[in-house]
Amino acid sequence: MIIIAEKINGSIPSVGKAIEAGDADFIRNLAKVQSEAGADFIDVCASVEVSRELETLKWMIDIVQEATDTPIAVDSPSAETCAKAIDFCKRPGLVNSVSMEGNKIATVFPKIARTDWQCAALLCDDTGIPRSAEKRLEVLEALMQKAKEYNIDPSRLHIDPLVEMLATSDDGVNMIIEVMKEIRRRYPTLHVTGAASNISFNLPARKIVNQAFVVLAMNAGLDSVILDPLNRDLRGLIYATEALLGRDEMCIEFIQAFRRGVFGTQPQAPAKK
Amino acid sequence: MIIIAEKINGSIPSVGKAIEAGDADFIRNLAKVQSEAGADFIDVCASVEVSRELETLKWMIDIVQEATDTPIAVDSPSAETCAKAIDFCKRPGLVNSVSMEGNKIATVFPKIARTDWQCAALLCDDTGIPRSAEKRLEVLEALMQKAKEYNIDPSRLHIDPLVEMLATSDDGVNMIIEVMKEIRRRYPTLHVTGAASNISFNLPARKIVNQAFVVLAMNAGLDSVILDPLNRDLRGLIYATEALLGRDEMCIEFIQAFRRGVFGTQPQAPAKK
Repeated sequence: MIIIAEKINGSIPSVGKAIEAGDADFIRNLAKVQSEAGADFIDVCASVEVSRELETLKWMIDIVQEATDTPIAVDSPSAETCAKAIDFCKRPGLVNSVSMEGNKIATVFPKIARTDWQCAALLCDDTGIPRSAEKRLEVLEALMQKAKEYNIDPSRLHIDPLVEMLATSDDGVNMIIEVMKEIRRRYPTLHVTGAASNISFNLPARKIVNQAFVVLAMNAGLDSVILDPLNRDLRGLIYATEALLGRDEMCIEFIQAFRRGVFGTQPQAPAKK
Repeated sequence: MIIIAEKINGSIPSVGKAIEAGDADFIRNLAKVQSEAGADFIDVCASVEVSRELETLKWMIDIVQEATDTPIAVDSPSAETCAKAIDFCKRPGLVNSVSMEGNKIATVFPKIARTDWQCAALLCDDTGIPRSAEKRLEVLEALMQKAKEYNIDPSRLHIDPLVEMLATSDDGVNMIIEVMKEIRRRYPTLHVTGAASNISFNLPARKIVNQAFVVLAMNAGLDSVILDPLNRDLRGLIYATEALLGRDEMCIEFIQAFRRGVFGTQPQAPAKK
């Protein structure tokens, strides 16, 4: 499972505060602990006003790169900003994310065309988020056509079929699971990713819904996910699912991750009064 | 999901001690809390020497029936003992479990033939536990033939395809999932059950492996399970999975179970020093 670590995002209140205060230590520590927990990419999102987004991103990326060698996932609502932020990065990372909306692909794909950069792509276009599996797969094909034009190999793409909230769905996750399976069938080397926590929006005990969803989605092809790598329960469940799906012979990776303390019971710090 | 509550079993040390001490209160309380937690059947297994198994079972069953109206799952390695224990029960319950071994079916099926009793059945025979999905399904067909002879409707049977341990498997849970899907396909009204915790034998962090397995197995057709209904994490995950699989419109049952406190964060008792 490819882990895109989500904790360095200015929309998280503690991170937003650290950005305002210029608290480099706070950002540095988040980079370190997520890297040590096994992140494959460290997502960096400023979530500040547009006028100072790029300089803020540069400041954050510099700090993260000083703290760890884990590649960066540059993250901004603006494809232009992502394309520019690539230049701040010492090593190839991931652009999070493009779609068939506006000129996003035309901005990002030429920039990463002759590089080792990877890219997350959402299955939506200028008409919005398609309602049916069929329509999402039409967007997929249009997107893959673009990737071909720029000679970007499927193995460099992480397709997000757009996980929506369960609370208002008619048939559970059926449609999204169908899309995931079909992506996997059509392009075996593509990565299937998703913002798993969208599923539980507006529900209680969200953590539990996210956990069950990740297991079902992995069964359908999910092999990349944006999450908090310090969430031990979810990490453990992912290792267990890999083993159950026959992707971890004799459970060796599961057992090793347990021994490294990635999940499971560990000596706890004394409870605070 | 049909929950067969597993806590009243003499092989659990605290229960074994209560049986030896004739501690009816201990058994009564286990029946009550499991029933209140939503058990559909309360498994009762003596795990004492054969010479006093039947009288012990009667003592236990009487206590449970005094404490709750939840039906009993009579549980013994001996089909004869199960068949006799049925007579102690006030209302139809479940026989746990028969198989194509020896005269088990010939002992239990005629006893429950004209009743509302249900029965769990394992896919093994006198040659042992079949190694392949194909062979297990052959045992299934032989078993269903027997059920037909005794006019026992598939909806009264819980088929346990025999979950084995993941730690020594070659291909994860692939084979058992295949068997579950095929049972469901051939006999849509059959219940598919399993001793889920077998999967994690010899692994660390067993709870996590069991959780991931239950989600995958539910996706393949599991709709009945022997478990500890007081395990809040697993109960929550089961409710979440039902919703994700489209079996809980608008997540109403999930939300109601959360409100009843079946799972999720609740006010905790102060930690012990």
